[in-house]
Amino acid sequence: MIEASAESGFTKQLSYGMVGGGPGSFIGDVHRKSINLDGLARITAGCFSQSPEKTLETGKSLGLDNERLYKSYGEMAEAESKRPDKIDFVVIVTPNTSHYAIAKAFLSRGIPVVCDKPLCTEESEAKELAELAKQKKLPFMVTYTYTGNVTVRQMRAMIKKGEIGKILFVNAEYPQEWLLAPAEKQGNKQAVTRTDPALAGKANCVGDLGSHVENMVSYLTGLKIKKVLARLDSIGEGRVLDDNATIMLEYEGGAKGVYWTSQIAAGGDNPFRVRIFGSKGALDWNEENCNYIQVYPFGQPKFTLSRGRDAFAAQASSLSRIPSGHPEGYFESLANIYKVYINALIKLKAGQTPGGDDLDFPDVEMGAEGVKFIGKCVESSQKGSVWVNF
Amino acid sequence: MIEASAESGFTKQLSYGMVGGGPGSFIGDVHRKSINLDGLARITAGCFSQSPEKTLETGKSLGLDNERLYKSYGEMAEAESKRPDKIDFVVIVTPNTSHYAIAKAFLSRGIPVVCDKPLCTEESEAKELAELAKQKKLPFMVTYTYTGNVTVRQMRAMIKKGEIGKILFVNAEYPQEWLLAPAEKQGNKQAVTRTDPALAGKANCVGDLGSHVENMVSYLTGLKIKKVLARLDSIGEGRVLDDNATIMLEYEGGAKGVYWTSQIAAGGDNPFRVRIFGSKGALDWNEENCNYIQVYPFGQPKFTLSRGRDAFAAQASSLSRIPSGHPEGYFESLANIYKVYINALIKLKAGQTPGGDDLDFPDVEMGAEGVKFIGKCVESSQKGSVWVNF
Amino acid sequence: MIEASAESGFTKQLSYGMVGGGPGSFIGDVHRKSINLDGLARITAGCFSQSPEKTLETGKSLGLDNERLYKSYGEMAEAESKRPDKIDFVVIVTPNTSHYAIAKAFLSRGIPVVCDKPLCTEESEAKELAELAKQKKLPFMVTYTYTGNVTVRQMRAMIKKGEIGKILFVNAEYPQEWLLAPAEKQGNKQAVTRTDPALAGKANCVGDLGSHVENMVSYLTGLKIKKVLARLDSIGEGRVLDDNATIMLEYEGGAKGVYWTSQIAAGGDNPFRVRIFGSKGALDWNEENCNYIQVYPFGQPKFTLSRGRDAFAAQASSLSRIPSGHPEGYFESLANIYKVYINALIKLKAGQTPGGDDLDFPDVEMGAEGVKFIGKCVESSQKGSVWVNF
Amino acid sequence: MIEASAESGFTKQLSYGMVGGGPGSFIGDVHRKSINLDGLARITAGCFSQSPEKTLETGKSLGLDNERLYKSYGEMAEAESKRPDKIDFVVIVTPNTSHYAIAKAFLSRGIPVVCDKPLCTEESEAKELAELAKQKKLPFMVTYTYTGNVTVRQMRAMIKKGEIGKILFVNAEYPQEWLLAPAEKQGNKQAVTRTDPALAGKANCVGDLGSHVENMVSYLTGLKIKKVLARLDSIGEGRVLDDNATIMLEYEGGAKGVYWTSQIAAGGDNPFRVRIFGSKGALDWNEENCNYIQVYPFGQPKFTLSRGRDAFAAQASSLSRIPSGHPEGYFESLANIYKVYINALIKLKAGQTPGGDDLDFPDVEMGAEGVKFIGKCVESSQKGSVWVNF
Repeated sequence: MIEASAESGFTKQLSYGMVGGGPGSFIGDVHRKSINLDGLARITAGCFSQSPEKTLETGKSLGLDNERLYKSYGEMAEAESKRPDKIDFVVIVTPNTSHYAIAKAFLSRGIPVVCDKPLCTEESEAKELAELAKQKKLPFMVTYTYTGNVTVRQMRAMIKKGEIGKILFVNAEYPQEWLLAPAEKQGNKQAVTRTDPALAGKANCVGDLGSHVENMVSYLTGLKIKKVLARLDSIGEGRVLDDNATIMLEYEGGAKGVYWTSQIAAGGDNPFRVRIFGSKGALDWNEENCNYIQVYPFGQPKFTLSRGRDAFAAQASSLSRIPSGHPEGYFESLANIYKVYINALIKLKAGQTPGGDDLDFPDVEMGAEGVKFIGKCVESSQKGSVWVNF
Repeated sequence: MIEASAESGFTKQLSYGMVGGGPGSFIGDVHRKSINLDGLARITAGCFSQSPEKTLETGKSLGLDNERLYKSYGEMAEAESKRPDKIDFVVIVTPNTSHYAIAKAFLSRGIPVVCDKPLCTEESEAKELAELAKQKKLPFMVTYTYTGNVTVRQMRAMIKKGEIGKILFVNAEYPQEWLLAPAEKQGNKQAVTRTDPALAGKANCVGDLGSHVENMVSYLTGLKIKKVLARLDSIGEGRVLDDNATIMLEYEGGAKGVYWTSQIAAGGDNPFRVRIFGSKGALDWNEENCNYIQVYPFGQPKFTLSRGRDAFAAQASSLSRIPSGHPEGYFESLANIYKVYINALIKLKAGQTPGGDDLDFPDVEMGAEGVKFIGKCVESSQKGSVWVNF
Repeated sequence: MIEASAESGFTKQLSYGMVGGGPGSFIGDVHRKSINLDGLARITAGCFSQSPEKTLETGKSLGLDNERLYKSYGEMAEAESKRPDKIDFVVIVTPNTSHYAIAKAFLSRGIPVVCDKPLCTEESEAKELAELAKQKKLPFMVTYTYTGNVTVRQMRAMIKKGEIGKILFVNAEYPQEWLLAPAEKQGNKQAVTRTDPALAGKANCVGDLGSHVENMVSYLTGLKIKKVLARLDSIGEGRVLDDNATIMLEYEGGAKGVYWTSQIAAGGDNPFRVRIFGSKGALDWNEENCNYIQVYPFGQPKFTLSRGRDAFAAQASSLSRIPSGHPEGYFESLANIYKVYINALIKLKAGQTPGGDDLDFPDVEMGAEGVKFIGKCVESSQKGSVWVNF
Repeated sequence: MIEASAESGFTKQLSYGMVGGGPGSFIGDVHRKSINLDGLARITAGCFSQSPEKTLETGKSLGLDNERLYKSYGEMAEAESKRPDKIDFVVIVTPNTSHYAIAKAFLSRGIPVVCDKPLCTEESEAKELAELAKQKKLPFMVTYTYTGNVTVRQMRAMIKKGEIGKILFVNAEYPQEWLLAPAEKQGNKQAVTRTDPALAGKANCVGDLGSHVENMVSYLTGLKIKKVLARLDSIGEGRVLDDNATIMLEYEGGAKGVYWTSQIAAGGDNPFRVRIFGSKGALDWNEENCNYIQVYPFGQPKFTLSRGRDAFAAQASSLSRIPSGHPEGYFESLANIYKVYINALIKLKAGQTPGGDDLDFPDVEMGAEGVKFIGKCVESSQKGSVWVNF
């Protein structure tokens, strides 16, 4: 045993609660594991399901005290906000249509919110949440996971520095294959959640994947969308919502783009690919191979930037946990945005004011942009694929 | 010396003439080399340039007799058509706007034509050429090179057999980078030819690359276009014609698609990529890696078909010249369509009637479809990206 | 709050201690993060450095009680073994030459050991540790990280099932580039640890990388080495130990192999690649792309198995945490072997007897094989690259 | 018709003869097509088979005069050497064991020789041929095809310029799969030729593939082998000669290397891969992807050099026929060495003295080195894998 004269300098773990993420839920467990990775916060409360029995089951398996397992998110928000050891933030991983009400319940009681994307289903609700968070000065993260990727942060830094010049064209795609089968009729819970308007809102594919694409391009480039023209297809038999979407875009300043997302494209593991073409060169990124960036400087040989091997901007390299060649992946990306978010909360608790890169997590404003984007795409498609101003 | 009792069974080489392909021309030499590969035809006549001196220079370097070097294509068509040893076919490799008149001159005098793509610049001219060829019963090839690729022919066979099921969606792209620089102002002859409406016609990028994409998808799938919606961008400063194009399509029968072609996309070596998504699986092909086909059967592991290694349909494997692993490329593709075309002429000369796979070269009907496609894209774009029926 | 009638079914987290892993240590933090991922154990004690100040610093940052921070591993082993809440296992992440003594100290006091690889530097010591662990019935893991990879476990299952037939030849390589620079003279702590015989033992490159290769091939195939012929090169100026190694092998049963490891091969991110060639097909795996297996069935198209997309054996798929396309990487692999190891300890604590796949972690016997392999390679090389029986 | 005042400046095609390459022969046709590509020479004579009927059949199909079809290579050498229009060179594409006698017959009668590799089967014969060619001042090419690749020539230029520094290690491999089946018992003519000592000589795999590897490394780097240690395996049942070979090398100057060639490695399309590791960086090349060079500069991002896109040395770029992205492959490589060789003959005929890059074709000295290499590998293996001085 070592005797220490001074008091501990340890920054105590934060505590968090979760709404959703009960038995059979996939994404709740993913969030919990990602938060675990760095050990900056631990779960202490939850309303994991609308069924108290299921909440109890999940709570037990996580070692939580029964008194912090709740029958409803409302009860949870109310009870937690009054505890001296209340949760430092809440994570919402429920179906899309419920995000708004849950987020509002916690925000209005002073509890910071992390919400799965899309933020909600109506533009007006999104605005309201953004305003509430601003008014209450509560950090609000929408978990656009991929922006946490180290290579994504490096590309953003490169674009800001002008390394590819003025952006001319963007081509982004996110084709999946899982809904080529009628999975929603085969007992796949996630397929039901995505394809039922009552749970998913007004869009499926463009809501789930399109919003990732919109956010990624926006995060990387800072481009603002001026107008969109979309065709949303419902290819799977009997589907009401879209499962394939083609979107043409024009950005402020004149750049153009095309996005394609699909859930019926055989062969797609999950190949979220973004290419940004500029006047001096281009960047090419694919989540499936997310430890590398392909760089295409015009007139020079194409090269590869490797996370952990090559020199990255500080804001990117600081999030890398392991040397080159050892892959980092999805969990590390999600852990990264949580790391930034939790560190911002820690600063706030310590009476400091986080700023600049301290706040480099996908926030509620980005979430609101995503909701707007989904709405505009649906509108354009319903009108026969016409241009809709943003 | 071996004494042979019987007469030679040798099929004498055919002879051909060329219009265009003089000094400094790139594509003419490529055609000559590709025809050389199999040795089925040799060049005997030409009008390689509007300048007789240049025609003479090229003619000499090819070892041609002066008496078969011509001052104009008109003189050449007239003179050759009257010779007992007249050329068996003519190859036209001049700027787009001149194709129609030249092709007509030879066709009308009974000489089979091979014409670089696009066939011509006006839909009405294209129809006329197609009708003339039909009426004269002259095989007419438009050199959509890539359809000669062994893997392309294999994919076509697979789609016909239903191996990927009903086609749902097509994503094809052909992004180049060379016009990111103002090459037409820097003395690049090909750039001038492509970007000057007087030489290129009403389109540049969608004319050059878009017509390849249209032809490839049509050849592979047999899908007929129902309507298109296009945005043609002129991104390079001072450009009149398009150098970037995004096209949404609907095909007869309900399948959908998106095409993207560009000449300002940094990093593009020449990555002509086509993906066909069906109800049972998908095919993915890229010219840069054209000895392989990526196959994505839904619910089964993805696999790679390798030219020369794996079992291919007869109509594909018969065109392969070398075992697996040894790459075949551009010259072999172009040589393949010439091989089919020349063999069809040989059959005709022998009094036989070529049919079926004998005629599996890109013909004047395909050329006319391409011209129509270009026109419809230009029309849609000019109207603000609206749907235009095909 | 939910009232529950029954007692908690929660399996309490295990607790562990760590020797090594102080300030500036890279690998200690990697182990801690990997254990965090699943949350099955938490750190409660440590001797992180030979310097008590540094142990204190690391202990504070981890939130440990001072009374469980120790001046020496000996003190720690003694004190922990006597506590009622003693650690459930110890993790040793110190330089190679110290592993033996530390592991022995904990084992002999009844505490299960996880030791970084190589297990130790002398074959006799390795045997002693293996025997001690057996005698004390204490699970002992040597952290050959890569065997925890989901695709590695799938390949092992495929080979066992005979899917590639009888193994004929193995080609494995692990080339790195970092010691192309004289890093040990430039203040790189890890480079000093690897290249100084006092810290690394009798080998550097073959000790670090060669032992990974040996273990991986052995784990995948079950092949036993019959004899080796090695050339160990010291290419970096002034280096005593090897930084490049070529090894020819013959296995029991007649299969042959070649291994190459290097630390002076420019360009190597960390490309640990293993190819197993059998009479019916081959498998090809690369850590840099570790979510995929390339499968080469003889006479059939080559295919790719994708973690999360394709059907894997239960023992592999049970360790996958996220669907296809979302990469898993290094942390997940290390977390996987910890998960298996910790679950085995939990079973033991619960009075059960783990067996079969419960014990599918890299154990002390594998560690001892690795030490033997290193010794035989050094012996062969010192004798001029002659065959040495295993 | 254009009237020309001056005489033709056309460089008349050379003419060549061929020994071997009759019906069912694969490689003879490949040589003929490759020579066709540039049209610099045409075939006029041949002894395509030991059977006159077969020679007649092939001769007819090629349109040759019967009087230049011969019953034996001896008759051909004798008759051609006396003709005023005798062949400018002969191409030998017969089984290995016959190369020596045929080459000698033509050389001694003053006819330049192109011989398939390996040059012959005995070191003494190789020396004799090299001396004879030197004495007669006849250009003699051994068709190591791959050295004709544009990217290979670029890599050679880069290494000469010191771009990767001092060479430290070479790793080269050429694994094929075709003899995993007992092809020689299944009527595969080439398999019989390779595996029967009477036709192949003392080695199979190391003779066919190993000699390519030896030549490529030598051509690229200029390294001279100091000693070799080899293990030649006969894995296929009943095989006398090797079908798998592992070779360790030491070069003059201290660099080291390892080569692996195989014919029993499932999955190998034909992946001839060479990696050269130097003190400043490394080069990585694979025939399957032969339009690209992977460059790994130490401490800088890895990049790709693309034939036709990136700036290449003149000696390389001058052999490229088509822009970037359009693949060139095997035929172009073989055509390239023929182009250099034929141009050297043309210079000689014109009374000029070819020198420098004019002679940059694989010559008889390289052929002799290859024969020596095969012999030394066989010797080392037979002695139990011991070091054999070169």
